[in-house]
Amino acid sequence: MKDRGLLIVFSGPSGVGKGTVRAKIFEGENDFSYSVSMTTRKQREGETDGKDYFFRTRDEFEEKIRSGLMLEYAEYVGNYYGTPLEYVNATLDDGKDVFLEIEVQGALQVKEKVPDAVFIFLAPPDLRELRERLVGRGTDTPEAIEGRLIKAREEIRLMKDYNYVVVNDQVERAASMVKQIIAAEHTRVERVIEKYADILEENEVNYYDVKTIN
Amino acid sequence: MKDRGLLIVFSGPSGVGKGTVRAKIFEGENDFSYSVSMTTRKQREGETDGKDYFFRTRDEFEEKIRSGLMLEYAEYVGNYYGTPLEYVNATLDDGKDVFLEIEVQGALQVKEKVPDAVFIFLAPPDLRELRERLVGRGTDTPEAIEGRLIKAREEIRLMKDYNYVVVNDQVERAASMVKQIIAAEHTRVERVIEKYADILEENEVNYYDVKTIN
Repeated sequence: MKDRGLLIVFSGPSGVGKGTVRAKIFEGENDFSYSVSMTTRKQREGETDGKDYFFRTRDEFEEKIRSGLMLEYAEYVGNYYGTPLEYVNATLDDGKDVFLEIEVQGALQVKEKVPDAVFIFLAPPDLRELRERLVGRGTDTPEAIEGRLIKAREEIRLMKDYNYVVVNDQVERAASMVKQIIAAEHTRVERVIEKYADILEENEVNYYDVKTIN
Repeated sequence: MKDRGLLIVFSGPSGVGKGTVRAKIFEGENDFSYSVSMTTRKQREGETDGKDYFFRTRDEFEEKIRSGLMLEYAEYVGNYYGTPLEYVNATLDDGKDVFLEIEVQGALQVKEKVPDAVFIFLAPPDLRELRERLVGRGTDTPEAIEGRLIKAREEIRLMKDYNYVVVNDQVERAASMVKQIIAAEHTRVERVIEKYADILEENEVNYYDVKTIN
């Protein structure tokens, strides 16, 4: 029997650079699968259905929601975005890790449904710097800057529901950190101890059934 | 203020290869300090006091125990071996990680005193293989082999008190795994969230005090 893969949820405040870090992670070799999101927004030139997104009508998307076939979803600017459950489950059952890059809102939905997923929060490097950058570029009013900082604060407040916090100070470093977290998670005792269950039982014969576990 | 370092406890059944993996970990660059053990056994040719071990008399060692200055200790073949507390605390306070390579017995003592240390269990790759190797080399009686397997089983039972299990199938791979675990542990939310405490409080002024956290 194959071991079920890990579900990795990569999220963080909007604008923190999730997409860039995710692209860097998938640049090199890796053992996990990227879950393609489903959306009702229009397919843009150069985008491929099933690669960039699964492009679906609003009716089709809502039917998926009603049938409980979305792991998480949200509506932005009049369009749905979400993660179809089927691919995630099939891939995990196949023993492969699945990587979701989603908004904070969606991550909270996944947390409720799959509490033993690995939740990684990508954080901005420095709020003081963010503030100085906002002031420096001179495009936001002081009120807008305060608004952005309040939003950043609210999003950081959600950090406590995650398992790991990676600071996006350098894309390369952040991507490497995420990969190390995933590797380490595979060795967590609660994930591997079942494979040793046979030995921990009283039957001596079980010695012969123990295989390499990572 | 410097962040306190992590205490890393690397342990596992005797004979599993802890020393070899530890040597590999310390071969390359790394950010953590190896804690030199104290012993009452005789200094051997080529060994340096303070590098290989702190060589002390039985009286001196027992005085340390009585004064509560040993983080952990055990007696093997009539000699004491243990970890002096002073170096560990000073190094952790200095913001550096401390790496202990100790026996399972000692690891349990550390677990009681420093529950938030990182406990990594080095496991044999395959008990079946171990059994075949023991049978194959023909030096042990069937009873002795069963005895060794029972011991291995008892030691594996202790795995549940650790945080991570790394299989020593290849030294290089196991060493790399341990390093990745240590890197990942630094990003665990419970270790970094305090640094965000200021933002999570109501006082807006605190925005300016947030620094890069990893």
